[in-house]
Amino acid sequence: MRILLVGATGLLGTAVHRELTERKHDVVTVARTGGDLRYDVTDPVQVADLYAAVGQVDAVASAAGAVPFKPLADLTAADYQAAVTGKVLSQVSLVREGLRHVSAQGSFTLITGVLSREPVVTGAAASLANGAVESFVRAAAIEIAPQRINAVSPTVFTEALDHYGDYFPGMKPVPLADVAQAYVRSIEGRQTGQVYVP
Amino acid sequence: MRILLVGATGLLGTAVHRELTERKHDVVTVARTGGDLRYDVTDPVQVADLYAAVGQVDAVASAAGAVPFKPLADLTAADYQAAVTGKVLSQVSLVREGLRHVSAQGSFTLITGVLSREPVVTGAAASLANGAVESFVRAAAIEIAPQRINAVSPTVFTEALDHYGDYFPGMKPVPLADVAQAYVRSIEGRQTGQVYVP
Ligand SMILES: NC(=O)c1ccc[n+]([C@@H]2O[C@H](COP(=O)([O-])OP(=O)(O)OC[C@H]3O[C@@H](n4cnc5c(N)ncnc54)[C@H](OP(=O)(O)O)[C@@H]3O)[C@@H](O)[C@H]2O)c1
Ligand SMILES: NC(=O)c1ccc[n+]([C@@H]2O[C@H](COP(=O)([O-])OP(=O)(O)OC[C@H]3O[C@@H](n4cnc5c(N)ncnc54)[C@H](OP(=O)(O)O)[C@@H]3O)[C@@H](O)[C@H]2O)c1
Repeated sequence: MRILLVGATGLLGTAVHRELTERKHDVVTVARTGGDLRYDVTDPVQVADLYAAVGQVDAVASAAGAVPFKPLADLTAADYQAAVTGKVLSQVSLVREGLRHVSAQGSFTLITGVLSREPVVTGAAASLANGAVESFVRAAAIEIAPQRINAVSPTVFTEALDHYGDYFPGMKPVPLADVAQAYVRSIEGRQTGQVYVP
Repeated sequence: MRILLVGATGLLGTAVHRELTERKHDVVTVARTGGDLRYDVTDPVQVADLYAAVGQVDAVASAAGAVPFKPLADLTAADYQAAVTGKVLSQVSLVREGLRHVSAQGSFTLITGVLSREPVVTGAAASLANGAVESFVRAAAIEIAPQRINAVSPTVFTEALDHYGDYFPGMKPVPLADVAQAYVRSIEGRQTGQVYVP
């Protein structure tokens, strides 16, 4: 399949890229500062331009979504808006603008995370963003069929424990290879409206 | 208790107001065009002004949250932002600005709805907003304790079936009296981080 992978140069994106390439897919990689194409997906105009440049694809996979982490008492109105812009509206734009460019039973795979269900200290804006995307995925699924949409909702990556482990005390990490399989399941399977917990 | 009730003049707010008043609470009512105090809670500055005018309360109850309903293909970037501004960031502002004004074990009760879990056609922006608020509530709970926060997540109101029934085919409606009890449970009970489904 021809697959558009956004956030392809990040920790997660690199793992997903590797797996999809090994499975012989043709992957077009996107990020702001690396990859085949350079676009900022928080800007809906750039998302439209991105699809105009890419043309038709069989799947869109997103591995990008920035959210601020701060104690709740320090989170400002601007921080919550940044979480929404960085992880929610950006991924919604990929779906909105992508509908005309994804094949009939093609798929969108969005990234969320465990914080939608299980909170951690400093994670309120991230929780809000993840919950928004997961509910959006369930809703969009019933309207875009036969095109499909799923979310991948991992706990902390084993490979990110050095950076983020202290924020997730006692939470079992997940290896990036397992997270990449959830993308494979969404893209090569036929389910829709699912929130995969790898 | 002294309770700030936002959206007090609406369908839901009127039912919650009636029940809280019957239970001998002192309710301060807020809306943009009615109630004791007139403020637009989508504007964080007005939310701060509202609390400055109100002073200390034992509970904040929100029954306001506007979201656009449209077929997914018609929902624009502005519509999704309107859902976030109208139902998510507005209620988050009530919590952010309210922390200094709510008593030690006092509560915030926010409104969401069944669309966080169960989608309907035209409801993608509403689903996104409800999912965001429910995940925020779970996350905020662990950081604001001993202050408390819960969400009330009803299906369509029996009293709103004439207006909205066609959008919720086969979904069991809930009487407003039962929804009002979920607010009572949140306010007079001691739980936190809950999503009550009345
Ligand atoms: N790390 C974890 O343990 C963990 C656990 C669960 C979920 N997640 C979620 O997984 C996602 C990826 O995490 P990660 O650790 O892989 O992040 P990362 O290493 O920072 O990678 C982010 C990737 O997205 C790209 N990107 C960022 N903003 C972009 C934008 N506006 N437009 C286009 N591309 C953009 C980045 O490249 P440029 O900077 O060049 O744009 C990079 O390729 C995040 O949403 C995160 O919340 C992470
Ligand atoms: N209707 C249903 O069946 C149903 C089911 C589940 C969940 N819900 C949710 O329940 C909530 C209330 O629904 P409803 O049917 O009671 O709505 P409604 O009748 O339209 O009442 C909304 C109330 O909020 C006030 N309000 C609206 N925007 C405001 C703002 N920016 N600042 C301050 N006050 C504002 C309105 O007064 P002003 O216009 O004067 O400001 C009014 O008092 C909504 O979030 C809705 O999504 C509804």
